Amino acid sequence: MAYTAEIIGVGTELLLGNIANTDAQDVSRALSELGINVYFHTVVGDNPDRLKQAVDIARSRADIIITTGGLGPTCDDLTKQTLAEAFGKKLIFNEDVAEKIRDFFSNRLHNMQMTENNLQQAYLPEGCVIFDNGVGTAPGCAFEVDGKHVLMLPGPPTECRAMLENCAVPYLRKLSDEKIHSHNIHIFGLGESAVEAQLADMMNAMENPTLAPYAKDSEVLLRLTAKAATKEAADEMMAPVLKKIEGMFGDVIYGIDTDSLENTVIGLLKQRRLTLAVAESCTGGLLAKRLTDIPGASQVFYGGAVTYSTRSKTSVLGVDEALIRERGVVSREVAEAMATAVRMKFGADLGVGITGIAGPDSDESGLEPGTVFVALAAGDSIFCRSLHLLFDRGRVRTAASSHALDMLRRHLTGKPV
Amino acid sequence: MAYTAEIIGVGTELLLGNIANTDAQDVSRALSELGINVYFHTVVGDNPDRLKQAVDIARSRADIIITTGGLGPTCDDLTKQTLAEAFGKKLIFNEDVAEKIRDFFSNRLHNMQMTENNLQQAYLPEGCVIFDNGVGTAPGCAFEVDGKHVLMLPGPPTECRAMLENCAVPYLRKLSDEKIHSHNIHIFGLGESAVEAQLADMMNAMENPTLAPYAKDSEVLLRLTAKAATKEAADEMMAPVLKKIEGMFGDVIYGIDTDSLENTVIGLLKQRRLTLAVAESCTGGLLAKRLTDIPGASQVFYGGAVTYSTRSKTSVLGVDEALIRERGVVSREVAEAMATAVRMKFGADLGVGITGIAGPDSDESGLEPGTVFVALAAGDSIFCRSLHLLFDRGRVRTAASSHALDMLRRHLTGKPV
Repeated sequence: MAYTAEIIGVGTELLLGNIANTDAQDVSRALSELGINVYFHTVVGDNPDRLKQAVDIARSRADIIITTGGLGPTCDDLTKQTLAEAFGKKLIFNEDVAEKIRDFFSNRLHNMQMTENNLQQAYLPEGCVIFDNGVGTAPGCAFEVDGKHVLMLPGPPTECRAMLENCAVPYLRKLSDEKIHSHNIHIFGLGESAVEAQLADMMNAMENPTLAPYAKDSEVLLRLTAKAATKEAADEMMAPVLKKIEGMFGDVIYGIDTDSLENTVIGLLKQRRLTLAVAESCTGGLLAKRLTDIPGASQVFYGGAVTYSTRSKTSVLGVDEALIRERGVVSREVAEAMATAVRMKFGADLGVGITGIAGPDSDESGLEPGTVFVALAAGDSIFCRSLHLLFDRGRVRTAASSHALDMLRRHLTGKPV
Repeated sequence: MAYTAEIIGVGTELLLGNIANTDAQDVSRALSELGINVYFHTVVGDNPDRLKQAVDIARSRADIIITTGGLGPTCDDLTKQTLAEAFGKKLIFNEDVAEKIRDFFSNRLHNMQMTENNLQQAYLPEGCVIFDNGVGTAPGCAFEVDGKHVLMLPGPPTECRAMLENCAVPYLRKLSDEKIHSHNIHIFGLGESAVEAQLADMMNAMENPTLAPYAKDSEVLLRLTAKAATKEAADEMMAPVLKKIEGMFGDVIYGIDTDSLENTVIGLLKQRRLTLAVAESCTGGLLAKRLTDIPGASQVFYGGAVTYSTRSKTSVLGVDEALIRERGVVSREVAEAMATAVRMKFGADLGVGITGIAGPDSDESGLEPGTVFVALAAGDSIFCRSLHLLFDRGRVRTAASSHALDMLRRHLTGKPV
């Protein structure tokens, strides 16, 4: 039997249009992967009467109610009280949770004082399953009354996403006997519509497993999903499709079931026992930031120089001033010189250099915003990509740093860079 | 009299989590500015029965129903049919609209064939106001039945936004005489619950204007909102509250109606004609990245060094090896040495140094993850904050970089750092 779920977002900031309801998107995607049908989303403000009304409607038409938001310590955070009351549950003070909240505060910043209303978060519906919040202080929870399941998740998207993955999905997986399994195929170097065009006929003919592309920053994520009783059966159903897709797309696929380009690169560097340093101009630290998002990056990533001013390219990295004058600061030659210089400076095996114009304005050279050169120095070789990215500032910077990671990935796996 | 509105998003892709409901956000923001209260959002799939159910609920509790999506030519786009039926209106073929659709295909979509179902879009509820679609083919519309207003907007966000601004807002403005205006007060250095605790009594006693706190990364946003006939009247109502809040919170307020800490710092540097360079260890480029997110940062931000390995702190920045050995690489002394060194290296007026442990694991020194030292070198002074951040890796890095920006902001405005 397929369960149906309804998602209720709680928060006046949603009704005022301050933020989009990305929690509902995250929860919906997770439910869809679990094979649970979602027929309605509702959003209400920080108002107990209207929340009660939404809950009554939801319980009349869904098996599972998932709320997001309204678990914080401030007085307008009323989700727990309202849901507990609606389902005839008392709120009980939980000493373990209280202790965790006290710990969180006593170890925190000197000017972040715990106030009594923080302990409000330690009251939870009697007999509930407690969902630990690894990211913030508000715990979530789940309970069942007469076959209806209620799950409460926090509103801040990072907290909601973490609790969804670590607590809510495992809780929901136990309810369902048919399981959904999927493979994520990560593609860099082809647009969503190009991927879709190649796959359209195949996708339309598929029922189980199914295939869907998602655009994500400058990447495409292809998700292959099968419903089956066991993981083994699902994998068997997906194997031939996976093989076909790998044959179609070849090395623009940078990974299957991996996390990200930066994760892939850090993993490859560790495997190959090679080290890296990066010199960035227009990306201004974004590439280094992405690499150091990965725990343990310090084993292979020595660091980088953000040479944002022209002078610092000379004074910090030692790029030849005459070369800059002759070729322009945004040029293949300067990107290559940056890659070579930063590798030497940090004593690393590999060096990356990025110079370009992120926009929105052009620079004095008259080059178009989105013009970026990305160079990779490795052994005696030097590679350079010349890019013309027709995006806004933020996406130009993301795409440029992704190209650097893609060049590293290709070099480290012996593919053409 | 204040109107109430309800927004119904139509589209299975929303329920599958393929996209976030940004249309609801755009419409909500516009309604909030018009002084129209929004108490509920609902999302339904491409299913006429469930849409009918959502419409029946909405008309029982709102004066205005705004739908987004489901106006396209494909057979699952059923919004018009369902809404017309629910309100007892016939759909009438409109020759003018049909002509526009034919034009659109013959002029704009050279390589796309118009099919008969495109003309489906020319059927509109009898007696409705037609909303021209400047961006796509699907027209929207509005009608009134027994004092209830129904507005239908297209789903693709660019089309929805354009029609909202050009047609729906002017239509709704005629209904309402009150407007909403607000001020955003940005706070760094106090948690949401501490802010809330100080303001609770005041907030509870307020009706117009109102005040609400929102947590956002390591910051708190306080939004003050007034309803009034004119912007001047609203400002007059908000001025004394604004003054009181400024008195209560003093210099933890870093800006009113500003964008972000990084924006504030770049603005102050430009104003004071001072330049900056940063040396980062555990933040790994995040601080430089945030500063260079701001267009025009290059005027005042010279760049930085990401000295992720211990050796690079010596080889690239010239931090004394003995100092690192003696004090430990994560120490106040090393943060200060990094700040001083990077300032000299880049020839900047101000230097920042950050060293710490982002986690999740401790380092060989045995210091806890979340231990971070942030130093600022300015003139003959050097300042340092010693932080113990009990967050996950991502938030430790964000908070540490925010502390650096806060120290810069305070120094540049003559506040105690």
